[in-house]
Amino acid sequence: MIYDLIIIGGGPAGITAGIYAGRQQMKTLLITKEFGGQMAKKATEVCNYPGFPKISGVELIEKFVEHLEKQESVEVKFCLVGKIEKDENTFIITTTENEKLQAKSVIIATGADPRPLEAIGEKEFIGKGVGYCVTCDGPVFKNKTIAIVGGGNSGLEAALFMTNYANKIYVLEFGKDLKADVENQEEVKKSDKIEIITNASVKEIKGETFVSSLIYQDNVSKENRTLEVQGVFIEIGNQPATAIAKGLVDFTKRDEIVVEPETFMTKTPGLFAPGDNNSGPYKQIVTAAGEGCKTALAAYDYLRKLNKT
Amino acid sequence: MIYDLIIIGGGPAGITAGIYAGRQQMKTLLITKEFGGQMAKKATEVCNYPGFPKISGVELIEKFVEHLEKQESVEVKFCLVGKIEKDENTFIITTTENEKLQAKSVIIATGADPRPLEAIGEKEFIGKGVGYCVTCDGPVFKNKTIAIVGGGNSGLEAALFMTNYANKIYVLEFGKDLKADVENQEEVKKSDKIEIITNASVKEIKGETFVSSLIYQDNVSKENRTLEVQGVFIEIGNQPATAIAKGLVDFTKRDEIVVEPETFMTKTPGLFAPGDNNSGPYKQIVTAAGEGCKTALAAYDYLRKLNKT
Repeated sequence: MIYDLIIIGGGPAGITAGIYAGRQQMKTLLITKEFGGQMAKKATEVCNYPGFPKISGVELIEKFVEHLEKQESVEVKFCLVGKIEKDENTFIITTTENEKLQAKSVIIATGADPRPLEAIGEKEFIGKGVGYCVTCDGPVFKNKTIAIVGGGNSGLEAALFMTNYANKIYVLEFGKDLKADVENQEEVKKSDKIEIITNASVKEIKGETFVSSLIYQDNVSKENRTLEVQGVFIEIGNQPATAIAKGLVDFTKRDEIVVEPETFMTKTPGLFAPGDNNSGPYKQIVTAAGEGCKTALAAYDYLRKLNKT
Repeated sequence: MIYDLIIIGGGPAGITAGIYAGRQQMKTLLITKEFGGQMAKKATEVCNYPGFPKISGVELIEKFVEHLEKQESVEVKFCLVGKIEKDENTFIITTTENEKLQAKSVIIATGADPRPLEAIGEKEFIGKGVGYCVTCDGPVFKNKTIAIVGGGNSGLEAALFMTNYANKIYVLEFGKDLKADVENQEEVKKSDKIEIITNASVKEIKGETFVSSLIYQDNVSKENRTLEVQGVFIEIGNQPATAIAKGLVDFTKRDEIVVEPETFMTKTPGLFAPGDNNSGPYKQIVTAAGEGCKTALAAYDYLRKLNKT
C-alpha cells in the first residue's frame, strides 16, 4: 500500500497537518514516538495558544489528539523513523524496527529539542523553575530573581525579554566572553536588572519543591559560588531533530531544514518541513500549527499535480 | 501618546497579534469594528481549528477575545480606520470619526470578505446551506447535492474538493465559458459527479429552514430553471479589505497586500499584514493566527532595532 501522505512527528505541527490531511481525505499515516513534542515536555502552563488563556501542555495536547482522532482517513503508528529515501515519485520510510512504508508525500514535523545543560538537578526541576523558553514561561517569574544560562544571542535576548518581568537577571556564560552580537551586548549593558557572569560553569540547580538556588564554578579561580534564584532558563541552543532528512534536504548551519517560506516544501518535491525543525523565524505552538496546516494543503496540491502526470 | 503598535482588525490574525504583543508588554491598541472577522460570520461550525474538534464560530471568537482581554498592555477601540500615513518613523492612523492616533508599528489584519452573489435568499441562508468556504463547511454536505456558483479556479477547485463529500455537484458559470485553468477544467471533466452549467445567472436561493433549491436563468434562452440542491457555495472571489493600506504597500492583481513571507512585513518598514488580506497561499483560521503571532514578534524585533537608532 502507498499512502498519500506520511507525517513524521506528533507535536502541534504534525497533528495539525494530520487534521488537515484528514479533512482533505488523504490516506495518511502519522508516525510518532509519542504525542506532544516539546509542548508536553517543557511548557507546564501554556498561555499563548489562542483560544486557551491558560492550559497545561498535557491537556492541550490531549485536545489536539482528540481532534486528530476524528479524522477517519488518518492512521497513527507509534514508533521511530530511521531513514527516508525517495525512489522516483515514491518515498520509502524505514522505521527503527526495519518496517518499510511507502508514501507519495512526506511531512517531517519532528520539531527541535532545547539542548540540555546536563547539570545536577536540571531535569528534576523542569517546570518547577527550570525552563527552556522565556516566551512560553517568562511571565511566571514576575518580580523574581532568575538566572539565564548561555551568553549567545538567545541567552541575551531571553534576558532582555525577562527585564519585562523579573527584578534581577543573572546571565551565565561558560567562556570568557559573551558570544552574542554586539548590538545585543550593548542593549544588555543599558539594563540595570541584568548582571553578566562569564567563566561560569553551572554545576547544580537546587531547591525543595521549586528552584531556590544555582551553584556554578568560576572557571578561573575554580571556586564554587551560589546564586539565590527562583528560576533558571537554559538558553544554549536547540537541536532540530532533522538527521533523518539527510540527503534529501539542505540544512542551515544550525541544522535547520531549508524550506520554501510559503509552502514549507524542501528542495525535494513532495517533502515538507513545518514547525520548529525548519529555517523560519518565530517558533511558537500556534506558528507550528499554522505551518502544519499549510504543509498538508500544499501536499494536497502536490499530489493533485502528481496524479495528473 | 505614541503606541508601540496599533493592530487594525479583530479576527483571528489581529487577536493573536494582540495576545503576543501583550505578552511582549508592547503598548498596543487594537482597532476593530467588531470582533470575529469572517469566523463569526460565515463558519457556523468550525471543525478545523486545532484543539477544538467542533465549535461554533461565535464561541471560538469569544474564547479568542477572552484570551486577548488578559493582556494588560493592550487596549481595544471599536471603530473604523479611514487612513494610514507614515511620517518618518511614526504611523498616523485616522479613524472614520477623524480621530488621529500614533504608533511606531502597525499590523493590518483586516482580512477579506468573500464577494457576495447578491441573489435573493443568499443572505438569509448563510450557515443554513449557503457557504463561502468548502474547506470550512464542505464535510457537512456528505452524500448531498450541491451547487457551486463560479466557474473560475476557486469554483472548480471547490467542486473537486467537494467530490470527496457530495454525491452531485453543479457548477454554475455566468459566462459562456469556464474561466478556470485548463488543468482544472480537464480534471473536472474526469469526475462523473460534477456537471457544468454555463450561461447561468443565479436568481434565487430557496428553502424553508435550510436550502432546498436554486433558481437560475439561462442567459441564452432567458428561461428560468430550478435545481434541487441542499447546499450552495459562492465562489466568485474575495475582496481583501486592503484599501486603507494604499500608498504604503504593493498589491497583487487581486488586491492582496504583498508581504515578505517570513515576517509578513510590507514594503513599508514597521507595517505588517498577516492573514487573509496578504499575498500568501492557504487561508485558514489557524494560519491567520500563526501569521498574527509572527507579525507581533516581528514588530517587537522591528521596535528594538528602531529604538537603537
